[in-house]
Amino acid sequence: MQTPFKTIGIIGKPSDPSIAASLAALNAFLKQHQYRVIVAKDSAPFIDDPSVNSYAIDTMARHCDLVIAVGGDGTFLAAARAIVEYDIPLIGINLGRLGFLVDISPNELSDKLLPILQGRYTEEKRYLLRTKIIREGEIIHEETAVNEVVVHRWVTPSMIEIITKIDNVFLNSQRSDGMIISTPTGSTAYALSAGGPILHPALNALVLVPLNPHTLSNRPIVVNDSVEIEISFCQTKQINALVTCDHIEIPKVLISDKILIKKEPKPIRILHPEDHDFFYILRHKLNWSSGYHNATKP
Amino acid sequence: MQTPFKTIGIIGKPSDPSIAASLAALNAFLKQHQYRVIVAKDSAPFIDDPSVNSYAIDTMARHCDLVIAVGGDGTFLAAARAIVEYDIPLIGINLGRLGFLVDISPNELSDKLLPILQGRYTEEKRYLLRTKIIREGEIIHEETAVNEVVVHRWVTPSMIEIITKIDNVFLNSQRSDGMIISTPTGSTAYALSAGGPILHPALNALVLVPLNPHTLSNRPIVVNDSVEIEISFCQTKQINALVTCDHIEIPKVLISDKILIKKEPKPIRILHPEDHDFFYILRHKLNWSSGYHNATKP
Amino acid sequence: MQTPFKTIGIIGKPSDPSIAASLAALNAFLKQHQYRVIVAKDSAPFIDDPSVNSYAIDTMARHCDLVIAVGGDGTFLAAARAIVEYDIPLIGINLGRLGFLVDISPNELSDKLLPILQGRYTEEKRYLLRTKIIREGEIIHEETAVNEVVVHRWVTPSMIEIITKIDNVFLNSQRSDGMIISTPTGSTAYALSAGGPILHPALNALVLVPLNPHTLSNRPIVVNDSVEIEISFCQTKQINALVTCDHIEIPKVLISDKILIKKEPKPIRILHPEDHDFFYILRHKLNWSSGYHNATKP
Amino acid sequence: MQTPFKTIGIIGKPSDPSIAASLAALNAFLKQHQYRVIVAKDSAPFIDDPSVNSYAIDTMARHCDLVIAVGGDGTFLAAARAIVEYDIPLIGINLGRLGFLVDISPNELSDKLLPILQGRYTEEKRYLLRTKIIREGEIIHEETAVNEVVVHRWVTPSMIEIITKIDNVFLNSQRSDGMIISTPTGSTAYALSAGGPILHPALNALVLVPLNPHTLSNRPIVVNDSVEIEISFCQTKQINALVTCDHIEIPKVLISDKILIKKEPKPIRILHPEDHDFFYILRHKLNWSSGYHNATKP
Repeated sequence: MQTPFKTIGIIGKPSDPSIAASLAALNAFLKQHQYRVIVAKDSAPFIDDPSVNSYAIDTMARHCDLVIAVGGDGTFLAAARAIVEYDIPLIGINLGRLGFLVDISPNELSDKLLPILQGRYTEEKRYLLRTKIIREGEIIHEETAVNEVVVHRWVTPSMIEIITKIDNVFLNSQRSDGMIISTPTGSTAYALSAGGPILHPALNALVLVPLNPHTLSNRPIVVNDSVEIEISFCQTKQINALVTCDHIEIPKVLISDKILIKKEPKPIRILHPEDHDFFYILRHKLNWSSGYHNATKP
Repeated sequence: MQTPFKTIGIIGKPSDPSIAASLAALNAFLKQHQYRVIVAKDSAPFIDDPSVNSYAIDTMARHCDLVIAVGGDGTFLAAARAIVEYDIPLIGINLGRLGFLVDISPNELSDKLLPILQGRYTEEKRYLLRTKIIREGEIIHEETAVNEVVVHRWVTPSMIEIITKIDNVFLNSQRSDGMIISTPTGSTAYALSAGGPILHPALNALVLVPLNPHTLSNRPIVVNDSVEIEISFCQTKQINALVTCDHIEIPKVLISDKILIKKEPKPIRILHPEDHDFFYILRHKLNWSSGYHNATKP
Repeated sequence: MQTPFKTIGIIGKPSDPSIAASLAALNAFLKQHQYRVIVAKDSAPFIDDPSVNSYAIDTMARHCDLVIAVGGDGTFLAAARAIVEYDIPLIGINLGRLGFLVDISPNELSDKLLPILQGRYTEEKRYLLRTKIIREGEIIHEETAVNEVVVHRWVTPSMIEIITKIDNVFLNSQRSDGMIISTPTGSTAYALSAGGPILHPALNALVLVPLNPHTLSNRPIVVNDSVEIEISFCQTKQINALVTCDHIEIPKVLISDKILIKKEPKPIRILHPEDHDFFYILRHKLNWSSGYHNATKP
Repeated sequence: MQTPFKTIGIIGKPSDPSIAASLAALNAFLKQHQYRVIVAKDSAPFIDDPSVNSYAIDTMARHCDLVIAVGGDGTFLAAARAIVEYDIPLIGINLGRLGFLVDISPNELSDKLLPILQGRYTEEKRYLLRTKIIREGEIIHEETAVNEVVVHRWVTPSMIEIITKIDNVFLNSQRSDGMIISTPTGSTAYALSAGGPILHPALNALVLVPLNPHTLSNRPIVVNDSVEIEISFCQTKQINALVTCDHIEIPKVLISDKILIKKEPKPIRILHPEDHDFFYILRHKLNWSSGYHNATKP
């Protein structure tokens, strides 16, 4: 069988020496199977291999057929944001608890990683969100998010009033602690804690989840992911607002700014083992185990 | 301007004499504007017009370019189910509180209905669900639903255990009071009371909402509307199960039966006034009015 | 140390031969430790001991200092309802998963049961609810509940309208699937699935939890347990209503009946091992395990 | 009838000239009915009456039989916190929308206020919470709250981990956005937005409401109001934590501090018109109006 990948990039959890052994093992495993390996600059020092090629992630992405992220969800999300424009597939290896995105353990390189490298995999497309901060008609900041964009009250100990438009049509204004705009990927993360529904990964949709809204009939709304969402604030005081993309804060957003959120045109491609089963992971992560065979994999 | 409709069918709320005046006024209005009118058999007696054409709904549907349902949501849902296979647009006139589907009052015939008849309208597609009851490999009953299919405990005063598969992949088994499978149309009806999200009408999705599940981490799941959903039960006693389509009970379902739910291939086409605004109706129906201009229409 | 109990009653899960071994072992254990034993009539056949005293539960309760219920939650709830008026403490032994009420396994007779019998225990008072069905001014039925009283829609596949008064003051009328009136004991059972809060067992309170209410701002209300709650219906059709006490159906309630619910004057006294910890059980039963030491007992 | 009050204090919304007319009218009305009036220092400038007595609130409280707060909920809450230790009853007059606490409009002085002053009233006791911030064994700050104490994530854009003890018994640790500890009074305010239940004002209880908890089975817990609640954090970084009492921020709390919360020993006494009906206000504030007579007062 001809292997579809020749050059593989590795991105490790930044500044975490505890993953050194896993990175080295992965590097050795890939070389042993005749793959060319490039390691992201920050992770190279953790691998004791003088022959290793190491580039900044941007450069690395231009020379790879595939990227493997080693770490937890945060590392995977950062890698996805970094390579989304290069149309390279991504695999996640996790040292801790397996999750929706990162589903291979370091000790499953032969059993689960190798078959993928040899072409036996399930490919999933996941779309990212691009957030633009608009001040006086100008884009002053842009950021991408795999999971969610959160607009949250900040400094003020009481609720804020948020105005939402969808494709330039007024949806509502609401007093609340803020709002989550989540992708299907993020629907099993923070949005779920805030009362949002689970969106199947294959769904072309976004969900807007209000955070502790003052009006009790405010509910999560699921919309087509082709829309543009605009968030602004009712307040007039020139204090800061808190806007985060995958828990990373966009600095110095003012509550007089407008926030535009829209799907990135290109998806990230995630490779999973062939028997990948979203519902199985869902049952495990959410402790669904009331009887029958629901904690088992068919 | 050439009118797109020539023959118009009228379906009234069955056996409700209080709509007689509205039916007669609508009939007169349409004739005055040179439309051919057909009245559903059950509604004809309420119109004091010996010249009126009256057929069974099936026959009527084959001779109409457009159907107008006069009554409440129940009348509209029944009309939609009855004509879905004929590809005729539908308009709702409501004597009571306006809603998401039925948004013209009897006293707005000139202002709101006439422009639609003359071609100035917004058309919305809404998909229905088809439910099949399978017993020993045979389809023993089929029913359609505009809003939702509900599988509910019945006779038993305690929870039931429901097994759900999506496109033949096991999702979960859950002890609960039952499950709602809702279209976007139904997402603002019973599913909302049960904690489901609002699905935008244009979304190609269904939502599965558990009813008071024993496992607290069971949450509504939104899936693509191209899937087939299969529901079965863990119990073995041969008692009845309660399955309803838009609140109409499917008779004599046993808990040993399988329930298959899938989108109807053809949508119903609903015509609204040109300024129809889903978000506006949402704000009004759900009493969203915390400040700013959210109860007003731009 | 003088033992506070001399005669101990045993109530087993009715018509379940699988508990025979546990009943026999308990009977032998108690006799070996010099206790007088009375076995409930239905359970006596499962114990192969010709010398055993066996009475109907009523008679048994008049001759005991303590009752031990062997089975699951259902057996314990039934025992509690049966002996509540006799002011005898109750202990639960469970063959399955331990719970809030029943917290001793059959293999812990020496470790956990014996210390209790010798006077080293934590005593908990739990109040029951008494439900009276009133028809034309007459009480036609009375029933007690340890967990909850549920008023639920029945026969009708759509919502019902329930009118609630508290101490004869109108609270609200609501369209819903029904209403749960729960004790603190029941607050971790069905009421929790319906979105109710957890009430600490020592709280003198009841909670009213609406079942899927049409009005989204309807929320659980916690009231003092000294109140009398009156439920009636808006409908006029003479169909049946479903009223259950701990999942046991009160037969033939009509929707023209009134339902009065009030705390029983005497509590049931439950004996637990000295290290009984409600919060510990809560963490275990609800899978609270996000980090730190929360799944462990101090 | 002998009037129970002789000297009445007035506290107005601070630095809000728009209440000047209401303050002046109230001052004149009270004098006309032979009451001695003391006005809080900050409010005196808004009343054009050279003869008015004006003191700091502390001093005023020592000379009054009754205090009237003029403004919104914020003014009433501040007045309640300021006078709680003086055992003086409190009345609220509101210029805006009436609420649970403040239920007299400025134009109802004769109809609603006068009868209260003459002794025809309903008295309600509401308990406050006292929060102590403990650093290295020392109390470094104390604050009272009528509605709620909120511990909220701060600076960090992701969840925090909170450890809760109740009467020194470990309840749980949870990753979340924070926690609300609410009185019955506060249960219809922020705690309700966060999914908490409504607590009847007469209930001797507190409710702990987690804010968007990571573990989906974390639920509001209602406990006796005699307990002491201790909150601490898992994090070790010496950043600030956000602790608010009725939306007022306690400055400079570190996440290494402990937060102790306990009921104030003395309640505030609120006087309402004789026909005061908590359920009526509840129905109005929460838009409960699904049919029947629920928006009407019997």
